[in-house]
Amino acid sequence: MCATFHAQLDELIIDLVRMTRLAGQMMTNAAIALHQADVPLATVVIAKRDQMYTMHDDTEQRCIALLAQRTPDAGDPRAVVAVLRAIGHLKRMGNLARHIALIARFKNPNPMIAGEVRPVLARMSLLASQFAEDAAGAIERHDCVSASQLAEADHEVNTLRRHLFRILFAADWSHGVEQAVDAALIGRYYERFADHAVAVAAEARYLASRRLPGSHGLETGCRLR
Amino acid sequence: MCATFHAQLDELIIDLVRMTRLAGQMMTNAAIALHQADVPLATVVIAKRDQMYTMHDDTEQRCIALLAQRTPDAGDPRAVVAVLRAIGHLKRMGNLARHIALIARFKNPNPMIAGEVRPVLARMSLLASQFAEDAAGAIERHDCVSASQLAEADHEVNTLRRHLFRILFAADWSHGVEQAVDAALIGRYYERFADHAVAVAAEARYLASRRLPGSHGLETGCRLR
Repeated sequence: MCATFHAQLDELIIDLVRMTRLAGQMMTNAAIALHQADVPLATVVIAKRDQMYTMHDDTEQRCIALLAQRTPDAGDPRAVVAVLRAIGHLKRMGNLARHIALIARFKNPNPMIAGEVRPVLARMSLLASQFAEDAAGAIERHDCVSASQLAEADHEVNTLRRHLFRILFAADWSHGVEQAVDAALIGRYYERFADHAVAVAAEARYLASRRLPGSHGLETGCRLR
Repeated sequence: MCATFHAQLDELIIDLVRMTRLAGQMMTNAAIALHQADVPLATVVIAKRDQMYTMHDDTEQRCIALLAQRTPDAGDPRAVVAVLRAIGHLKRMGNLARHIALIARFKNPNPMIAGEVRPVLARMSLLASQFAEDAAGAIERHDCVSASQLAEADHEVNTLRRHLFRILFAADWSHGVEQAVDAALIGRYYERFADHAVAVAAEARYLASRRLPGSHGLETGCRLR
């Protein structure tokens, strides 16, 4: 295997971890901005999207340059394709955090989230941010997030979303249509962010297995899907 | 340039066109199922998601195999990366069409869409399907969808979504919270599907320029972003 190829791939993976942490921080701040009606913090998150796009485009160009290396001992392209897939998810995660921040900014100073849905959405936002941190950690440690961990995480988010709809559609919902629609969309954004974070964590299997001699990412013990 | 590389890339692009048409058909049928309360048609769309996933996974494996070719005269990886990006969008489009079909199935026989929002959602669904067909045609003809066409399309979808919210949040909305939430989420799914279709169409620039000698996809007249 070519040392240069692996050195460049290592650098790509370091930046992938940075992007994953950036997405997690964006979501954490967006949720704080929303739940505490903090408009300056929302503005910070909105501006961070550009940084995510720049990192995405730079990483993608370096992936393409690495794939273009035609030396016979260049490494398996599978790990580079895993990085490409992961940065696609991270770009969307940045956009979803920005959506939350935009709602926090534009709907202020209206009461943003009615009492009953507040703890449900707060828990969803916490899980979304946590999944991003878990994904970053898994990639950093050349580790696999276990299939059972991912399934469990996914299950809790889905349960929370169903619970949210039960509250919104109950006969005693008294906060009107606009707050219900906002809460449903915010829940959708948290859920999608969490889904993308789980998908990024799942790429850890390719990146964890890439160092094994002759490995194509499918022969290791990392089976996530 | 290597003929085998280009022959394989041509086959990938043919399948990319097939996948794009499949996504468009799924959305057309999902919208008909929703607007006409056609449960058997919704069930067909729900089942089609597996076909989309199979096509996605098969195409991705062939992209990786093509990237692994290490002959010095193998083609530029940029077009293959464009195919990889496009199939990621198409997988999501299949999921979004399935979301619409699931709503059509599970909410039946309740009145699905209240009078005022029906034409707005119908127009959004039509645009979503049309964008998929436009994207398929652009890739098939080795053509570029023009930047102005994409911007115009995007503008109409955004205008419709704002119009939808005005209807839902108006004081005279009389169809309750559940129908408002459903309409908002359906609008979101149509909008996201259209966004992904526009992104697929944008990949046409790499695929259209790949035959030019020495081209890396950026030196041609196709400038979409």
